[in-house]
Amino acid sequence: MRRGQLPPGTPLPSSRTLARDLGVARGTVTQALDQLIAEGYLESRPRSGIRVAPHPTAPPEEAAPPPPATLPPVRGVDLRSGFPDLAAFPRREWLAATRHVMQKAPNTAFGYRERAGALELRQALAEYLGRSRGVVATPAHIIVCAGYTHALRVICQILGQHLGSPARIAFEDPTEPDYPVLAEQLGHSALRVPIDDEGLIVEELTRENAAVVTPAHQYPLGVTLSPARRVELVSWARRAGGFIVEDDYDGEFRYDRQPVGALQGMAPDRVIYAGTASKTIAPGLRLAWLVLPDCLLAPLQEATRWDESYVNVIDQLVLARLIETGEFDRHVRRCRTSYRRRRDLLGDAVTRQLPHGRLSGIAAGLHAVLRLPGDSQQEARLVTHLAERSIHVDGISSFYDRPEESPLGILIGYATPADHAYGNAVTSLISALHAHFGQAGVPKTMR
Amino acid sequence: MRRGQLPPGTPLPSSRTLARDLGVARGTVTQALDQLIAEGYLESRPRSGIRVAPHPTAPPEEAAPPPPATLPPVRGVDLRSGFPDLAAFPRREWLAATRHVMQKAPNTAFGYRERAGALELRQALAEYLGRSRGVVATPAHIIVCAGYTHALRVICQILGQHLGSPARIAFEDPTEPDYPVLAEQLGHSALRVPIDDEGLIVEELTRENAAVVTPAHQYPLGVTLSPARRVELVSWARRAGGFIVEDDYDGEFRYDRQPVGALQGMAPDRVIYAGTASKTIAPGLRLAWLVLPDCLLAPLQEATRWDESYVNVIDQLVLARLIETGEFDRHVRRCRTSYRRRRDLLGDAVTRQLPHGRLSGIAAGLHAVLRLPGDSQQEARLVTHLAERSIHVDGISSFYDRPEESPLGILIGYATPADHAYGNAVTSLISALHAHFGQAGVPKTMR
Repeated sequence: MRRGQLPPGTPLPSSRTLARDLGVARGTVTQALDQLIAEGYLESRPRSGIRVAPHPTAPPEEAAPPPPATLPPVRGVDLRSGFPDLAAFPRREWLAATRHVMQKAPNTAFGYRERAGALELRQALAEYLGRSRGVVATPAHIIVCAGYTHALRVICQILGQHLGSPARIAFEDPTEPDYPVLAEQLGHSALRVPIDDEGLIVEELTRENAAVVTPAHQYPLGVTLSPARRVELVSWARRAGGFIVEDDYDGEFRYDRQPVGALQGMAPDRVIYAGTASKTIAPGLRLAWLVLPDCLLAPLQEATRWDESYVNVIDQLVLARLIETGEFDRHVRRCRTSYRRRRDLLGDAVTRQLPHGRLSGIAAGLHAVLRLPGDSQQEARLVTHLAERSIHVDGISSFYDRPEESPLGILIGYATPADHAYGNAVTSLISALHAHFGQAGVPKTMR
Repeated sequence: MRRGQLPPGTPLPSSRTLARDLGVARGTVTQALDQLIAEGYLESRPRSGIRVAPHPTAPPEEAAPPPPATLPPVRGVDLRSGFPDLAAFPRREWLAATRHVMQKAPNTAFGYRERAGALELRQALAEYLGRSRGVVATPAHIIVCAGYTHALRVICQILGQHLGSPARIAFEDPTEPDYPVLAEQLGHSALRVPIDDEGLIVEELTRENAAVVTPAHQYPLGVTLSPARRVELVSWARRAGGFIVEDDYDGEFRYDRQPVGALQGMAPDRVIYAGTASKTIAPGLRLAWLVLPDCLLAPLQEATRWDESYVNVIDQLVLARLIETGEFDRHVRRCRTSYRRRRDLLGDAVTRQLPHGRLSGIAAGLHAVLRLPGDSQQEARLVTHLAERSIHVDGISSFYDRPEESPLGILIGYATPADHAYGNAVTSLISALHAHFGQAGVPKTMR
């Protein structure tokens, strides 16, 4: 009937005949016919028996659907940035915390919950963020989100609600290019403000309503926002009535001294703080959180009034448990030690074997920037050359508003490989760079 | 410094003095000062020592933030609709599936994943939905969402993308009132189309681009969309180039005969099918899924291009595992048996003890509608009267576009209490109704 092989009006054999032909009980046939009638495929009229209903004909054959958007794991050496070491995922600890939640959570935990997220997690986060990042927050200031992309959507909703009009939102240049596009998709204007060695050049801000920054470890360049710029940025926000969005994506990982506290602590009234478990545990968790200034709490309520929470309560309670038991901190410490070792190994290799290379952004985070002689076109050739040797890195130019003006740089995500594979990954990278540039570090194409 | 007690310019004692005064090592003091310098609170100038930096003054005291949006569990008898029995949450099975995932998932599972959802879950859902709901789907047609509210947002994004303009979206009247508001918040027009005993009155549809319906068990009235209306609705969609959004929120629970298959099977090219784990397992999971027609797959890709998945991959793999092992089906069967018994008990009680009451919408789902003599004003008084006796039910009038025109009805969520509490819940409800209406079923206020 769906395919049109039994056109509307076709009479069906009696249930007695069908039962005999198919060799099944008549009750079974009757049940099946009743269901097809209820679903609208058949109709039963007095004295005319059961016929195929005048249901709509089958749709015309359409083109095959596009394949699902999959992200197959890359084969070979994966040094893409933005990943923690997924081999270090705390499987045992996650399971133990899940067991705890399944044993202890009241039944009501599994119902519709607070839109802002489970109170248990917001309490654990308020304590953790205060202790580890210097963030000033109570559970009432926190909203749990389904990853940073969702958090950025919520920020855009809140700003629109607060202003009553589209916002002008400044993004760093370079930046993750998807984020300004997302802001524009949501009706706001996205502007680009350049950064230098001290981070965002604050004096370039003019009439923006918000500035999205990565103070702890600029993404992708790895610069730390300088003390003077922090003060300048907060002053701008106070003066202009603007908001600072502090994307603290990898603030937990600082290697050579104490972590630099979050900017939020200096101006809880002007900073929207965004944190995530994507770098500390894994991106697949889709767990992030915002800490909002007092004055944005009412706009948050209003903007999300028709929503539910987007985050599974079990995951929220599991993360709360990991923080409360100290497992989260232990995991971060273990990773920090491992990543510092990896960074040092990379730094040594570059110093010893790439005399023309310069590694930057190494004080913190999960990736560094390797600058080499050349321009963005040569960068594209280099990234292709590496990919052909199954070495996967990101070029830096695509993060710039004007990619063609960027000098050659590649991002090396040194946290990405598993521990056992890391040494080999660096060796392969250096060899491939030598093959491309020559031992002297000058591209063969330039000689 | 944050509170302004040490104004900018204040000189600090030397690190030697501070160390002695505080009784700590000088290195500790130096480290702390360095950190405060890096964070912008202090500044160090040659020959003038360390001073409080000209950081922005403390914000003025603001009003206390509003309390977090919490949903405290109600005390007493909870017969609100929209909940499954949370006491039946399959804790043991969820934990076992989590253990399996933690033992078997490759490391790459925890990275950034397919925006549409983990392929493992989409495969399991395609099989499950075909088998249990007659849905025609491949994994490529499915997108996993963070609950139905998120799914509805995605639908609105897709429709906007497909049409290139705001859509006219029909909602049933009565309906869950948040959903039309959400659609309007996203820039679309939301219209209301009345329903009768056969479900949506299709001939009232005119130039709509989409119609959101609940064919299996209309929410909140509990009507099943009739065979003739199913055919009519699909014909409308084909003729008008519109889409049917099939909200199959409780389609798994049908009691007196086989479940009525999803409308989607009749017109996979015109129906956007939405399912959820909120009623089969628990709302706290925030797990839902859409099955899209071929022609909306490209708009989906486009509309979500700048997003990540919003759903934790562990939860996706756990649900896939529960479906694959048959635990999901066993759980649904257990619940179905329990809910059928509860519905029957409620039906008997109404028949025997409320001669003027009429129970409807009982063929399926997790709630029934109890009609009693009176209007919407009397309904409000009744709901208050019950709440004062700690009996929590929803009145039906707030689901209507014009609440004042609705006759008196209350929704009884018979799945909501735990099994052991259910008998008492029904007894309490009937007694409270007697207290309000008198044994004859006529409100005392009318006598």
